Parts: sequence; C-alpha cells; structure tokens
Amino acid sequence: MNHLTYMKLAQELALKGKTTVSPNPMVGAVIVKNGKIIAQGFHHHRGGPHAEVIAMQKTKTNLSGATMYVTLEPCFHYGCTPPCVDAVIKSGINNVVIGMKDPNRLTNGKSIAKLRRAGIKVQSGILEQELCQMNEAFVKYITKEMPFVVAKTAQTLDGKIATQSGESKWITSDITRKYSHDLRNEFDAIMVGINTVLKDDPRLNAPKKRLKKVILDSSLQIPLKAKLFRESLPGNCFIATTKAADKKKMVQLEKRGVNVIICPIKNKQVDLKWLMKELANREIAKILIEGGGKVIGSALKDKLVDKMMIYIAPKIMGEQNALSAIDGLKALRLKQAVGLRGIEVSAIGEDFLIEGYIK
Amino acid sequence: MNHLTYMKLAQELALKGKTTVSPNPMVGAVIVKNGKIIAQGFHHHRGGPHAEVIAMQKTKTNLSGATMYVTLEPCFHYGCTPPCVDAVIKSGINNVVIGMKDPNRLTNGKSIAKLRRAGIKVQSGILEQELCQMNEAFVKYITKEMPFVVAKTAQTLDGKIATQSGESKWITSDITRKYSHDLRNEFDAIMVGINTVLKDDPRLNAPKKRLKKVILDSSLQIPLKAKLFRESLPGNCFIATTKAADKKKMVQLEKRGVNVIICPIKNKQVDLKWLMKELANREIAKILIEGGGKVIGSALKDKLVDKMMIYIAPKIMGEQNALSAIDGLKALRLKQAVGLRGIEVSAIGEDFLIEGYIK
Repeated sequence: MNHLTYMKLAQELALKGKTTVSPNPMVGAVIVKNGKIIAQGFHHHRGGPHAEVIAMQKTKTNLSGATMYVTLEPCFHYGCTPPCVDAVIKSGINNVVIGMKDPNRLTNGKSIAKLRRAGIKVQSGILEQELCQMNEAFVKYITKEMPFVVAKTAQTLDGKIATQSGESKWITSDITRKYSHDLRNEFDAIMVGINTVLKDDPRLNAPKKRLKKVILDSSLQIPLKAKLFRESLPGNCFIATTKAADKKKMVQLEKRGVNVIICPIKNKQVDLKWLMKELANREIAKILIEGGGKVIGSALKDKLVDKMMIYIAPKIMGEQNALSAIDGLKALRLKQAVGLRGIEVSAIGEDFLIEGYIK
Repeated sequence: MNHLTYMKLAQELALKGKTTVSPNPMVGAVIVKNGKIIAQGFHHHRGGPHAEVIAMQKTKTNLSGATMYVTLEPCFHYGCTPPCVDAVIKSGINNVVIGMKDPNRLTNGKSIAKLRRAGIKVQSGILEQELCQMNEAFVKYITKEMPFVVAKTAQTLDGKIATQSGESKWITSDITRKYSHDLRNEFDAIMVGINTVLKDDPRLNAPKKRLKKVILDSSLQIPLKAKLFRESLPGNCFIATTKAADKKKMVQLEKRGVNVIICPIKNKQVDLKWLMKELANREIAKILIEGGGKVIGSALKDKLVDKMMIYIAPKIMGEQNALSAIDGLKALRLKQAVGLRGIEVSAIGEDFLIEGYIK
C-alpha cells in the first residue's frame, strides 16, 4: 500500500458525508502505523467533529510513529470545533499526508507550516485534482463567497422541454427522473422560477434531506397553498422577491415563517447575482437550478452557473415553437454562446446525461 | 482461426467498397484451404466483378477441399455479371460459410439451396447482425425500394443551429466539420432545401466521390449560378420541384443537363415520399439530408428517415428564438415526438456525435 492507496481510501470515507456536510467540505482521514490501518474517520455533518479527530479518537494505540492521511489540510482556526492542527500535534503522530491545501483563507497552508514547525513530516498534494473536484462546491463557496451553482435540464435531443402546447410530463424516463431526484440530496438548495411553481406546483423535496427551496418570484405570485410549503419547514423556504411585491402577501408569508428576501431589481427581475451572494451569506453553498428555461438563461447570462447537467431523452420534438430548454441569453452572435468544458457523457437507462463546466 | 475470425476478415475486405459500391452491397470473400488463407476479394464498385469471383480468380490452387467465407449469400441472378452461385459450384469448393442471406428477392436463399443441391456444405448467419448493419442501406433499398435516409444536424447542446440573427458559421469545430464532410463519401446523394442554397450557397461536394445533389425547390428559386452546379456534372444535380414552377427556368436548367424532377405537391411542398421513391428508381440508395431544419422535420413527419446523426458542440445558445435544428414536426403531444433507438455517442475533438435509428 502506498500514499495514493491510503488517500483513495480517505476519499471514499470523505464521500460518505456527501449529502450532509455542506457548507463544510467532505473530509476523510486514515491513520496507519507499521503498515497497518489503525483508525479511520470522516466528517459526518456540519457542526460535528472533523475527520482527523474522529479517527484519532477511534484508536487507543500510541500514535507515535503513525502516519495520518487526510484529504484536506487540518483546520487552523476555531469554528464549531477547536483547530484540528493542534489535536494532531498533541497526538504524537509523526507524519501527515495531505490531499489538498485548505482553500479557506483562515487555514490555507498555515496548518501545514505549524505541523512542520512541530517537527511533523508533512507531504501535500496527493490525489489533489480528484479531491479538489470532490469539494468543488466548497472551494468556490469558501474562496468566492458565492454558491456553487448547477443548472439542470431534462430535454429532447433537439433541446426541447415541452411541446408547443405546453405538455412536459415527461420528457425523460422514470429511471432518469429517479436518478435526477436523488441528485438533489447533494445540494443545499433547489431554485426554480415562479412560473414553474404556477404551472407544475412541484414539491421540490429531496429523498433524504430537508432541502432549502428558493423561488424567484419578483411580484410575489406564489400561492400560499403551493405544495412546496407543505412538505417543508417554512424556514427552509426562501421567496426571492422585489419591493414591487404586495406588502400584505409578504407579511402573510413571513407570519408563516417563510423567508422573504427583498432583492434589488435588474431587468425587471430579481437581481440574481445579488441573491446568490445573499444565499451564500446564509450558508447555502451548493444550489441546483431546475428551471424553467428563463431562470437558467438569466443565471447563465449573469455568469452565475458553474456546471450544467443536461439529461437527454432519445427523442426529437422537431418544432421551433416547442419550448426550448434554455431561454433569454439573447446571443446575437455565435461567439456569445456559452461554452462548456470537461464534458462527460453517461448513459441512464435509455436516456443519457451530459455534464460540463461553464468556461 | 475459426469461422468468426475469417468472417471478420471478409467484413474488413467488404468495407473497402464502402464509398464505391452503392446501390450494390459491400461484399468481401476469403478462401481457406488446409487452414491457410489462399485468396481474398471484395466488391470494388458497382458493375464490377463480385467478391467471390475476384477471390477465386486470385488463386491457382485447386479449390477442391477449400472453404469460402463470404459476407453475403452469392447472387443467384444475372445482373451486370453472371450468377456467382454457378461460379462457386464450378470451382470445386466444398464448403461455403455465409454471413447473411441476400435480402434481394432475386436471390434470398435460392443460392444457398442451389449450393446444397450441388453437394456443397453451407452454413449461414455467421456475424449476421454486424453484416446486416454494415449493409443497412442496401437492405432497405433492395427490400423496400426506397433509399436509406440519414438526417444530419450540427447543433448546440440546446438544439440550435443558428443565432436568432441567423449566424450559423460555425457551430461545430473544424475537426467535426472535416469528419462530417468525409462522411458524405458514404452516400449516393446529399439533399438540402432551397433555403440552404439561397442562404449559404454551398458546394455540396464530397472529398472522394461525385456526389449526387438533390435540392428541394418547389418554386424553382435556385440561381443558375449556384456553386453546387459548378463542381459537379450537371447530370449529378437533381432539382425536385413542382408544376407550380416557372417553365422557362425548367427549360434553362434542363438545357444545361440538370435533372429537373416535377413532383406531386403535398402541403404546398414537394411530396417527399414520392420523391424518395423516384430517387430509388434512379438507383440512389443512400441519401444524406443536411438540412435545413424544415426539410429534416418534413422527412421525419413523413417517416422517411432511418437514422439521425447529431453533431453537438459543447455550447449553449440559450434562446427560444435562435434557430432550432429541426422544425415542422408539429407535435402537440409528447407522444408525437419521434423516438430513437440504438443510441451511440462518440467524441470528435471537443464536440461529440449522437447517432440513433428512428423507432
């Protein structure tokens, strides 16, 4: 077993926190002594103990002479828990192998330096690329103070999400919709426009977690009886509106515990960039935009989207007037089209999924 | 070496005729005696000798005791050449292993029966599925007396082929366009609508062959100076029009040797189904429809398309009013969308290609 093997194990452990740690990073740790794994740990949920500490607490073996593999540089700062770097030094561990430096400016190399000053041998950058990708949402959130935003469409081969008469249920197969529904678990919040709410009255829930729900509703048209309120704590609902909205309705919503966010106006709509910043301030680090097409178009236009997930059914709608998956970018020239990089294609039953990052 | 190995070799040989044999099938043959390959052959070009005869002529070895592997049942009938089945019997070959039965009703099992009656051991159906797919165009053409039709789009991820202001050069990359241009070699004819000619004035040529060019032009708007006439024998140009067209222009075109086909009218346009039949009668077995979107839409609506080839650039146009890749299907219900099966995805540089058969 070499560094890479142990680090991959630490990554696997880290991934167990995929749906629960945000806005914190996923972190996994493995402690090895005399060629044997003596302890493992991962960060379970935000606010809970860190992977390093969990691993150290799991073993009674003397850690002198042991090596710790940890996917992310131990923290230097006091957050919900005291700094891991001090606990590691105190433990007597002699070697620390780190996957990636913590991009959080409160740590960012400081723990590596402190460990070295304490006489601990430190190696960093093992499996770095994979680990950065695993925590891509955290990296953006902590460095830019903006949420990592994924926009999702479920469309035909020719980019349509509904017939010209508006029929949209369903473009993709049951399997794909289940897959896409499960994906919501990986996000802190789901965002849709008011038109989606008025047309489909969706629940916007996730199978395994209490998802936050953000509705773009500049003139506060949302029905008080919308299904999305029902299966949710009111505090998990965020209605982004503008001062143009009806004050009485605002009060009604707030009385029920719903968060009404009054946003600046941009092009007669909620200023999306301002809103994203506000959501980041509220510790929403990873957002899934599920539509409609105009909401995705606006977010792309404002350069707020990091990644696209495009589910494609092997069908052709074949009609200019059928509803396009994305609208409002207003590109008049080809060079204004939004480019994607790092495209990956995977099959889901008879459908497939194209993923890519916005250039 | 077993049957499958020799048949795969025969298939490789057959594929050498890919761009030259249509409307004939691709055929390859391998003769084996005492475990050694003693001769190989393939059908080079329409009207030329068949694979079996070429292989038999290539060896002076006595063929008694030999086995012939041939991808397609030897022909039973007189065409440009005498029946291969008789030549095989006369050669003294003892075993014939056949990939697929000839779907041509003039042969279709008759040669297999004749070989057996002559005391030759025959096995058929080796690598059958792959060989049927290789000759899918021939199979359709010979059984339905209609061309095998492939429709091609080059679009963004959201199904657009031009901005709302009409800019369309280029959606896909140089590599993809080169790849797609080379693909034309595999067809007998390319088909476009008159709007494509008026907008882009394309040459519609192929790198390696004299492609036939079919223009849908119900009211004969085609300019006599269109580039497509220049790099082509006039006899390779087919202008499909209707009796509504200007007689004087018809005469002008015909004087230059261009084929003017006067088609029945359907929905104010050329009756595409009638035209396809007419083109099959003129021995055009494999057609590539390159657009525009309305031509592909009409062909899909009339159930004339066999296969879609969708080149996708990793870009998002993000605009309802940008030009959709396919138009005119008029599907009001989702169930009216055209389904595809047997989807294959491949990467071409940074773009990718989705291929599938119409259900």
